[in-house]
Amino acid sequence: MSRIRTTQLDLLPDDIIDLGIGQPSPGLLPLEIMQQAAAHRLRRDPELLAYGYEQGDGHFRRVLAGFLSGAYGAAVDDGRLFTTAGASQGLDLVCTLFSQPGDTVLVEDPSYFLALRIFADHRLKVVGVPIDENGLIIPALEKQLKKTKAAFIYTIPTFHNPGGCVLPADRRQQLVGISREYDLPVVADEVYHLLNYSADLPLPLACHADEAPIISLGSFSKILAPGLRLGWIQTGPRQMQRLTGCGLLDSGGGLNPFTSNLVASAIEMGHQRQQLTKLKTTYAARLRILSGALEEHLGSRLEFHEPGGGFFIWAALAKNCDTTALLPSAGSARVGFLPGARCSASGRLNNWMRLSFAYYDEPALELACRRLAKALQHIS
Amino acid sequence: MSRIRTTQLDLLPDDIIDLGIGQPSPGLLPLEIMQQAAAHRLRRDPELLAYGYEQGDGHFRRVLAGFLSGAYGAAVDDGRLFTTAGASQGLDLVCTLFSQPGDTVLVEDPSYFLALRIFADHRLKVVGVPIDENGLIIPALEKQLKKTKAAFIYTIPTFHNPGGCVLPADRRQQLVGISREYDLPVVADEVYHLLNYSADLPLPLACHADEAPIISLGSFSKILAPGLRLGWIQTGPRQMQRLTGCGLLDSGGGLNPFTSNLVASAIEMGHQRQQLTKLKTTYAARLRILSGALEEHLGSRLEFHEPGGGFFIWAALAKNCDTTALLPSAGSARVGFLPGARCSASGRLNNWMRLSFAYYDEPALELACRRLAKALQHIS
Repeated sequence: MSRIRTTQLDLLPDDIIDLGIGQPSPGLLPLEIMQQAAAHRLRRDPELLAYGYEQGDGHFRRVLAGFLSGAYGAAVDDGRLFTTAGASQGLDLVCTLFSQPGDTVLVEDPSYFLALRIFADHRLKVVGVPIDENGLIIPALEKQLKKTKAAFIYTIPTFHNPGGCVLPADRRQQLVGISREYDLPVVADEVYHLLNYSADLPLPLACHADEAPIISLGSFSKILAPGLRLGWIQTGPRQMQRLTGCGLLDSGGGLNPFTSNLVASAIEMGHQRQQLTKLKTTYAARLRILSGALEEHLGSRLEFHEPGGGFFIWAALAKNCDTTALLPSAGSARVGFLPGARCSASGRLNNWMRLSFAYYDEPALELACRRLAKALQHIS
Repeated sequence: MSRIRTTQLDLLPDDIIDLGIGQPSPGLLPLEIMQQAAAHRLRRDPELLAYGYEQGDGHFRRVLAGFLSGAYGAAVDDGRLFTTAGASQGLDLVCTLFSQPGDTVLVEDPSYFLALRIFADHRLKVVGVPIDENGLIIPALEKQLKKTKAAFIYTIPTFHNPGGCVLPADRRQQLVGISREYDLPVVADEVYHLLNYSADLPLPLACHADEAPIISLGSFSKILAPGLRLGWIQTGPRQMQRLTGCGLLDSGGGLNPFTSNLVASAIEMGHQRQQLTKLKTTYAARLRILSGALEEHLGSRLEFHEPGGGFFIWAALAKNCDTTALLPSAGSARVGFLPGARCSASGRLNNWMRLSFAYYDEPALELACRRLAKALQHIS
């Protein structure tokens, strides 16, 4: 009898601390919140079990708009929100509706490595645009746009994955201007925007969705639970029409009406706000530990900017190092990371690594750094 | 303040009886079952809130395999089951992974009209193959295959939508043989297979998935609740590898881990079996009423075979009638139907209409037939 598999990671050996895992901490999964939300919601209207309204349940979107308005510090209109079955499903749907195989997508280099897999399934060509410590370099984007007709730009403006950086307000304005000028959709993956541990943040690109064809992806995976497969898109009327008019929704109805109704209760009962506060406190402490321990044990060999939020530290070894080649010695030391080359559309960034502080607790993060130091001890 | 929309249908005028609606009866939505399932499941392991295993939660698939084995009367292996977010999402994913824009898909003529919309979003060409009262005509398929290179065949073998017919065992064997011989995927939409009110059924095409590239779509939308957005694919190892290896799952994890765990409880507690019995009793009675009332009020003008299961009666007026043109007079009589042309890949079948007996109760079905008779009274 084969072992029953439940999660993506349940074959991971117990004794490895893999900082390559970019998932929320399992110890923080809100089972009790979902119990209470289910008890609250499932006493009511059975309509949440019918084929849902294509844009997503109206009550859920209204509650979500209220929550986001508070969290962003800017009014969010529920008419601009579309319910998804998670940011990955949202991105997949955008690829189906806003691109064709053979089209080119511009991405940051580095970018979210699993988004690159979704683009590959849709047979899209991917061209990288470099980032610096403030995110996407706008002149580099403009230069690329002169050479390349792109279906859309995929960007992670806040607490970049893997870069950790935040695109400042002026670059956001420039990006919105380019999107409007070229009538070029900007798919903004903003799933880390609410995981802010220190910085004063500029508004999410979502808030510019009426000025240009911005398609912002949000998700409950990082702020509540990934297993819910629930997220949202915030976008303007023209893109909304394409989304809600698609065949998938015409046939299956709106996405995730059952779960979105339960999550509406979690928000209404105040649980989502409390959970977010708890996550931010926990992750901020973990970030401090990982950052401090890297400094202590690897300070001379590793270079990084401490991010103000999100899940990741993006760190560079000396230029001649290849982090992919270091994986076996890291494995022997029972530690892991995501090599930079995996995050690169251009196959560059070989001397970088992505280290997540979200999945493990503080002692594990400290121990991981000791192990990493051991694995890298022969590096100058 | 705009009206809050919850379901696909909540703007439908109260006084219209629209037999075009092919949805489960709202009065039968199992809110209490989902309450009990949530209470049962959400006391346990928080893993259902993590990123799920790509093929779908192992416990859910094992429970589902047991349920299907009993219902099909043939062993179903959980290793051949893949969890989807509903049959429409399953079909959408199959289009992404098993076809490219510009490819041709062979469908039955008539076919499920909203599947045709999903194919259009994927920019697939659709070519129809005729059916008779026993479903897909195999020699017509063979003839078409000699002319056309198809990415896959889309078929509804049991209680066809809209045709109501059941493909007999010998044609199934021939279809499986063709699929194997041409190495041509057969996407079998088998969502009505379990809604059997009388007939001895042949095995679903799902049960032939080890003999040929069969991709069978199943769903809880028709047997439990559409709002759950939960279904499954049963298929062989080669197709399974393509499904589980795709970027969407690599990024978002398996589909619907939260809801599938709740439904596992609904099955384990015996609720799913009881609900299915209740649905079959209810729908069988509705079918008798609709069939009898059509016979009584429209017998001379309408021709149909009474189906042995599913949701639909597929009925023909005289050849020179156009059911699309009859919609306004039907609307004036406060009754609706789905005109045959909507179900046709070839734009033929103008004299047909699809009438569903699933959504309305018996008095409404009886009344609808009286209204339909009035609307069609000028037709010879």
